[in-house]
Amino acid sequence: MPINPSAQTGVWTDWTERAWNSGDAILYAIGIGAGSLQPYASELEFTTENSKDVMQRILPTFAVVLGPVGASLASAGPFNRAMLVDGSRRVELHREIPVEGRARSRGRLTGIYDKGSGAVVATESESIDAETGEPLFNLYAQFFIRGEGGFGGERGPSGPRNVPPDRVPDHEVTYQTRPDQALTYRLSGDRNPLHSDPEFAKSAGFERPILHGLCTYGFTGRALLHALCGSDPARFKSMDGRFSKVVYPGDQLTVSMWAGDGQAIFNTRNQDGEIVIDQGICTFSA
Amino acid sequence: MPINPSAQTGVWTDWTERAWNSGDAILYAIGIGAGSLQPYASELEFTTENSKDVMQRILPTFAVVLGPVGASLASAGPFNRAMLVDGSRRVELHREIPVEGRARSRGRLTGIYDKGSGAVVATESESIDAETGEPLFNLYAQFFIRGEGGFGGERGPSGPRNVPPDRVPDHEVTYQTRPDQALTYRLSGDRNPLHSDPEFAKSAGFERPILHGLCTYGFTGRALLHALCGSDPARFKSMDGRFSKVVYPGDQLTVSMWAGDGQAIFNTRNQDGEIVIDQGICTFSA
Repeated sequence: MPINPSAQTGVWTDWTERAWNSGDAILYAIGIGAGSLQPYASELEFTTENSKDVMQRILPTFAVVLGPVGASLASAGPFNRAMLVDGSRRVELHREIPVEGRARSRGRLTGIYDKGSGAVVATESESIDAETGEPLFNLYAQFFIRGEGGFGGERGPSGPRNVPPDRVPDHEVTYQTRPDQALTYRLSGDRNPLHSDPEFAKSAGFERPILHGLCTYGFTGRALLHALCGSDPARFKSMDGRFSKVVYPGDQLTVSMWAGDGQAIFNTRNQDGEIVIDQGICTFSA
Repeated sequence: MPINPSAQTGVWTDWTERAWNSGDAILYAIGIGAGSLQPYASELEFTTENSKDVMQRILPTFAVVLGPVGASLASAGPFNRAMLVDGSRRVELHREIPVEGRARSRGRLTGIYDKGSGAVVATESESIDAETGEPLFNLYAQFFIRGEGGFGGERGPSGPRNVPPDRVPDHEVTYQTRPDQALTYRLSGDRNPLHSDPEFAKSAGFERPILHGLCTYGFTGRALLHALCGSDPARFKSMDGRFSKVVYPGDQLTVSMWAGDGQAIFNTRNQDGEIVIDQGICTFSA
């Protein structure tokens, strides 16, 4: 079995550096649907750098593009990457991400769990501003490796978290993804042909290319930002969610939020009411 | 009057160099609507670099992004750039543009004409492959400078060219632009806020941001490529057209073609039947 269940956890990778600029921020924003609503002027701060009296800002979930959550996967053993499915992602922001900058990041493996039908590999990463050394954000990711379970390891944490209360949501936001959404989203970095090549998608067992889980995550983050944080990225503190079902480009996404004090439980459903991100929680400041 | 009607024509600028890559090609393709039709697999060679059995290629009108047609405008005098409107563009391709490469280019002023209400400044540029020295493409552009006419100069060439014959077109292709089309197109280089900032557009006398003329040109070129050249960029030899009316993001564009031997006269209309590119001619090989 190519995964190594006794791979050492807790060892940080070397620091790596990555720069981004205003254009990267805009391309990411468009990739997760910013500016596609009418009037699009409502999101000009995320989609343009030179609009009058508008200061450009960056969408909080851009962190998932910048952070190296995958870097420490290699230490889990030489498993088949085609069997890897994104399981969950938690973003913790220590400050608003600047529109351009350089991040220094490192990652580490935090656990390998045996789910029977597959293995779960858990990683985390931390990123700091390369200029100032200030903490920028931490990411926590779980990946599901199909077919790699049954090695007699721990099952790891389980059971539903962040269960919505039994009442109607306090906020609901619906966004329409486009049939060609993934073609733009992939330009932010994840060029896996599973999201663009119909033939490749078929060979992987899907009827057509599927949307990046992190694209759905970005749409969801936009909805949370606008509904909970008054569209102010500085108020967006963290977001956690589990990918529970495949999304196809062209699907409609509805984010339902149950707000409490400085936090909200959320989930994201497709047009058929199926939950595609569950166990969601977002924290924010007043 | 800030334009200089006696500016010297025919003097080449210095050579400048510009690199582009596969990602630039894809971003441009998406900016002019490639991949937005269903099934988008029909344009995968322009929108992806890693689809199975598909070799990436570049849309012929990418030349207008690469070439420095504006570089020689400065020698026409220090006129107000806010009064500049794109007038026409002719692209002559000497070979299919590679998906990545470096071009060396130079440009020159070829004429300044007095149209009464404004001046027309004509420029040309030539671009060669920086590695091999082979000619890549030439561009010919005319710009209209509002308010700069009346200096007693020549009117220059006029009268309608490339008039469609009095019969139904041989081909018609209709594409839908998106309300946020310019947000993606501008990432290929032309960041003029006239195309993205509602306030700026209002101050320039438009009800809302207008689409880049060269975005309309790109949609038109895609239609010509698919209808006349069997979608093969190597067969696309030249394209010439005049910008006759403002296009708004969200407009529908219909390209009508009257084909002859190795060439076709064309125009582009909006959803109200108004001609937005006229005097069009495209040449292609069998």
